[in-house]
Amino acid sequence: MPNTSYYELQNFTFKNGARLASAKLAYFDINPTATKIALVSTCFKGRLNKTLNFSSGAFKDHRVIVVALFGNGESSSPSNTRDFPESLSYEDCVRAQYKFLSEGLGAKELDVACGFSMGGQMAYHWSILYPDFVKNAVVICSSARTSRHNYQFLEGPRTALEWGVDYPEALRAMNEKRDGGRERGGEVPKCIQAFGKAYSAWLTSAEWFDDELYKEMGFKTLEEWDNNNIKKGYVGWEVEDLLSLLGMWQRGDISFGGNLEDALGKIQAKVLLMPCESDQYFRPGPNIREAKSIQHAEVAVIPSVWGHIAGGGDNDVDTQWMDKRIAQFLQQ
Amino acid sequence: MPNTSYYELQNFTFKNGARLASAKLAYFDINPTATKIALVSTCFKGRLNKTLNFSSGAFKDHRVIVVALFGNGESSSPSNTRDFPESLSYEDCVRAQYKFLSEGLGAKELDVACGFSMGGQMAYHWSILYPDFVKNAVVICSSARTSRHNYQFLEGPRTALEWGVDYPEALRAMNEKRDGGRERGGEVPKCIQAFGKAYSAWLTSAEWFDDELYKEMGFKTLEEWDNNNIKKGYVGWEVEDLLSLLGMWQRGDISFGGNLEDALGKIQAKVLLMPCESDQYFRPGPNIREAKSIQHAEVAVIPSVWGHIAGGGDNDVDTQWMDKRIAQFLQQ
Repeated sequence: MPNTSYYELQNFTFKNGARLASAKLAYFDINPTATKIALVSTCFKGRLNKTLNFSSGAFKDHRVIVVALFGNGESSSPSNTRDFPESLSYEDCVRAQYKFLSEGLGAKELDVACGFSMGGQMAYHWSILYPDFVKNAVVICSSARTSRHNYQFLEGPRTALEWGVDYPEALRAMNEKRDGGRERGGEVPKCIQAFGKAYSAWLTSAEWFDDELYKEMGFKTLEEWDNNNIKKGYVGWEVEDLLSLLGMWQRGDISFGGNLEDALGKIQAKVLLMPCESDQYFRPGPNIREAKSIQHAEVAVIPSVWGHIAGGGDNDVDTQWMDKRIAQFLQQ
Repeated sequence: MPNTSYYELQNFTFKNGARLASAKLAYFDINPTATKIALVSTCFKGRLNKTLNFSSGAFKDHRVIVVALFGNGESSSPSNTRDFPESLSYEDCVRAQYKFLSEGLGAKELDVACGFSMGGQMAYHWSILYPDFVKNAVVICSSARTSRHNYQFLEGPRTALEWGVDYPEALRAMNEKRDGGRERGGEVPKCIQAFGKAYSAWLTSAEWFDDELYKEMGFKTLEEWDNNNIKKGYVGWEVEDLLSLLGMWQRGDISFGGNLEDALGKIQAKVLLMPCESDQYFRPGPNIREAKSIQHAEVAVIPSVWGHIAGGGDNDVDTQWMDKRIAQFLQQ
């Protein structure tokens, strides 16, 4: 596993007007002597070391930069930065990453912007904000604009967390730890477990549950999978980081409130859209519609019952399928 | 609207061993002079007066009995009965309804057991528990056994409620009111609103949200629909009633932990299964599989983007489609 590096941005102003004297981006720099850059952004509740980066496959000849979203707890986030902006936007992350690549690494272009889920929305936002800079975009289980259905599903976990019985306590504990106080011990707060419960049935697909595919992840029963998900799966995650990421996701829209087709038409990059056929919220339909408005786009639907997480690396078969498909896309 | 009548069951013993000296079933008796009986059970969060009963259409020649599930707040429920059993099962509801029909109304047979969602699971449980008594079953947006996916989705709202910031207060208020104290005023408790939020994106379909079909329900924006749903949609609903119904739903299984195909094979009734093609949790697939094991079954998939609630009466076109399809089924 590579070391985590940090790029510092001085006096960084966010879209909502907030300014940080020092913001940082956490990243991995894999195969740093290669010329062409592939940039992979983390997903919701994603850490650098859990992010699928294709550096042994489709991106093996690239310098692979895996970069953490603001709010993920590794880059600047509510849990590690005082006076962190109250709302984040993908533009903030893309602008910071552009500064990092162009000024920090001296890059003249980005060969591939890639990501899964929120990371895929990052690749889309990269393509629209720096159309001359991005050559290729690989968008996995994601969309150009967060759908109303996706927005509404996220309202469930959000509300379960914010109105959870121990949310005030979890917030206080996060702030104390950030300010140098003691670390909170013990279980994941109930409000975060409730968040995880309200999220859990969306992660995969109805077929995945029917076929008991949690057994392939090493869990004997649904209950065991569920318990692991809400208890171990959220260890180290802080309430405001989850909410900060979630808000950015809900507001995701490469047209920034305008006409989506027009925005898609302005993308210069060659785009590979890879939805999963059984994804319950980032569904193939919208990607297929989006592709029609993009100058150079193709859609490759991941044939899997693993739903959304097919794109995140949880199932080897799907990961290999994507890896091959991305390699093929880049070789064209 | 008919008057609500009550049937009293003395010394009723529930499956979990609890006994009530007096349990009651709330019901509507529509067209009481007709000979053949159609029994329609309420759904989750369903009241008698909101239950689609087809009494002007497919069941116009029937005596239509609309009956409230235990736990719905009209029949015996945690909110109106001290020492209510801690867990309910569909068997409890079916056994009580059978006593009501056979002893209360003197019925020798039930021409149609019908219901939507949990009401559909009731029709299924009726068919397996009293196979000689039920002639036809109409199962709308439902299943013979609650799927793991469905079970897991319900864990979200359940946990949001039980770990909600004001759950203890809402429980206390419910108990005080039940015991003759003052009625709680003001807003729906936050824990119930969080329940509603975590449930909301499941109700319809992704297409429904994309197409902004909440506008057909009279709401100008998604936010307006959402607010109405969690604030007005849950007025009068008490925490333990919701949890009681939800647990019964999660445990729904006409094989009672046994072999589902064997159980389905024992059904004597002619069965009409009507899933909606875009339902996100009671999906067509399981109904199609179930039908293969039932002696006399047909599946008619509701062609609608209204998802689960297509079967509940929220969209007139779907209601008319079902009404015609049920009439056709009964005339065969």
